[in-house]
Amino acid sequence: MSLTIVGTIAFDSVKTPFGEVDRVIGGAATFTAWAASYLYNHIRLVSIIGDDWPSSELQKMHTRGIDLEGVKIVEEGKSFFWAGEYDKNMIDRTTLTTELNVLDDFDPVLPPLYRNSDFLMLGNLTPQIQIRVMEQMNDRPGFIAMDTMNFWIDIARDDLEEAIRRVDLLSINDEEARLLSGKYNLVEAAENILNMGVRYLIIKKGEHGALLFGENKMFFAPALPLSSITDPTGAGDSFAGGLMGYLASQSSVDFQTMKKGLIYGAVMGSFCVEDFSLRKLQELDKEIIENRANELMELSRVD
Amino acid sequence: MSLTIVGTIAFDSVKTPFGEVDRVIGGAATFTAWAASYLYNHIRLVSIIGDDWPSSELQKMHTRGIDLEGVKIVEEGKSFFWAGEYDKNMIDRTTLTTELNVLDDFDPVLPPLYRNSDFLMLGNLTPQIQIRVMEQMNDRPGFIAMDTMNFWIDIARDDLEEAIRRVDLLSINDEEARLLSGKYNLVEAAENILNMGVRYLIIKKGEHGALLFGENKMFFAPALPLSSITDPTGAGDSFAGGLMGYLASQSSVDFQTMKKGLIYGAVMGSFCVEDFSLRKLQELDKEIIENRANELMELSRVD
Repeated sequence: MSLTIVGTIAFDSVKTPFGEVDRVIGGAATFTAWAASYLYNHIRLVSIIGDDWPSSELQKMHTRGIDLEGVKIVEEGKSFFWAGEYDKNMIDRTTLTTELNVLDDFDPVLPPLYRNSDFLMLGNLTPQIQIRVMEQMNDRPGFIAMDTMNFWIDIARDDLEEAIRRVDLLSINDEEARLLSGKYNLVEAAENILNMGVRYLIIKKGEHGALLFGENKMFFAPALPLSSITDPTGAGDSFAGGLMGYLASQSSVDFQTMKKGLIYGAVMGSFCVEDFSLRKLQELDKEIIENRANELMELSRVD
Repeated sequence: MSLTIVGTIAFDSVKTPFGEVDRVIGGAATFTAWAASYLYNHIRLVSIIGDDWPSSELQKMHTRGIDLEGVKIVEEGKSFFWAGEYDKNMIDRTTLTTELNVLDDFDPVLPPLYRNSDFLMLGNLTPQIQIRVMEQMNDRPGFIAMDTMNFWIDIARDDLEEAIRRVDLLSINDEEARLLSGKYNLVEAAENILNMGVRYLIIKKGEHGALLFGENKMFFAPALPLSSITDPTGAGDSFAGGLMGYLASQSSVDFQTMKKGLIYGAVMGSFCVEDFSLRKLQELDKEIIENRANELMELSRVD
């Protein structure tokens, strides 16, 4: 069994009302892989970086058992760089800089071993790349999840809809769900998107939790109310990591495992936002995670 | 045992993206009493109306067992009137008209029988009126809840804080909690407000659910995702009715009963928003309510 994660590795500069950091490690695949690594051991990463990326960070991932054969290191290349600033509500953010750098030429070629993966997480990339990754698989993975963003909904809708038809799970936020479906109401949006041919849909509502739709059922995973939120960057990617790590650790995926997967997703997202960059995600252990998962499952339980 | 509800009865004119209604019945106490009436039988209402108020609506409440001795009818008086328009998100709203009319002179005098009430719900009125109602009680009710609004936080903070110290439960929305506490983070806001001397605090987040704080515990009641929301007017008041009706039906109030009370609050709020005015709230029955309560308790349950 194995989980292959395809996505970006980046440097981030982030300013929030609670502080700022400059050129720290970030990127969707980084957050996703770290979050998943606490729940599952056979993780493979597909990404691209420049040789400005700190080898110590690659070493840390390697030590956690994350396979890095799929991470292409471009000599004399510069890693993807994103800079942004968050509003007081910690939701709205302004992008100050986006330097694609090596990401501009990213066309992932999966190492032969990766072409047999049971679980595949396609991070937010062009829908064409997401499709090309799926086409490199020898057998269709048992479970494929994908993320996307407003930009691709706007400019690459046909490709995006094709990608959506090919995966098992689409995980997007509320604004993306509204844009993709043309429906403001999230229940209507979900119905519309499921009709595009995807088995499960997760609509992430940030600090307001996440909704799961599929099998004609609905589930809501609350977000844990936190007394301190430092930096929301990577929360959605950590959510994806917790979810996919948990699913990959199970023998099969059904609505019940999906529900618990959302809980682990919410848990990993909640850790992520407690500090800048990967700081919190790099210092967790199984017990801390299980305690918080239990806390979250109790939060809305009524007997 | 009895539940006394003090608050406004009004005519509302409401426009939402889904339609509009002109001079329909509304008012916090109306929504609260109707919602509570499905969960508890001994309800007494304290309010003021003009003789323009339809007697058929008073008759309907009377038929439901709501005692109206405390509703003062001002001859040749005009009932409180509010007109507003909701934004597409069904949260932000613009008040177009507020005519206090008879409410301007509202200084409730409780009928003698009402002065022994086990449960007391103080709707959003001036904090001084809320205090004067409490002072008319022969014995302190076993459980007192109050609502308030931004306006009183801004202009009558001292009186408001005194009222808060005297009640068991303060039920407000997220923006009010932030304004009252000076804290943006809701966990910090809750800590601050509980330190004012109230036993329980509910922070309503509209379509994102409601948080309960107290006894060093936290509970989150999700809102049921609805495919159709017609008019949010009265949702918070219906929430209060479901909550207080459930609590009054129980032999004692502790964190466990409060949790279930929030579920019934969320349920009654969810019915309220499905149609304009009291239309939906007036046609419910116990079975429909229990089914939705079970649905809501299942929504976030993970075994």
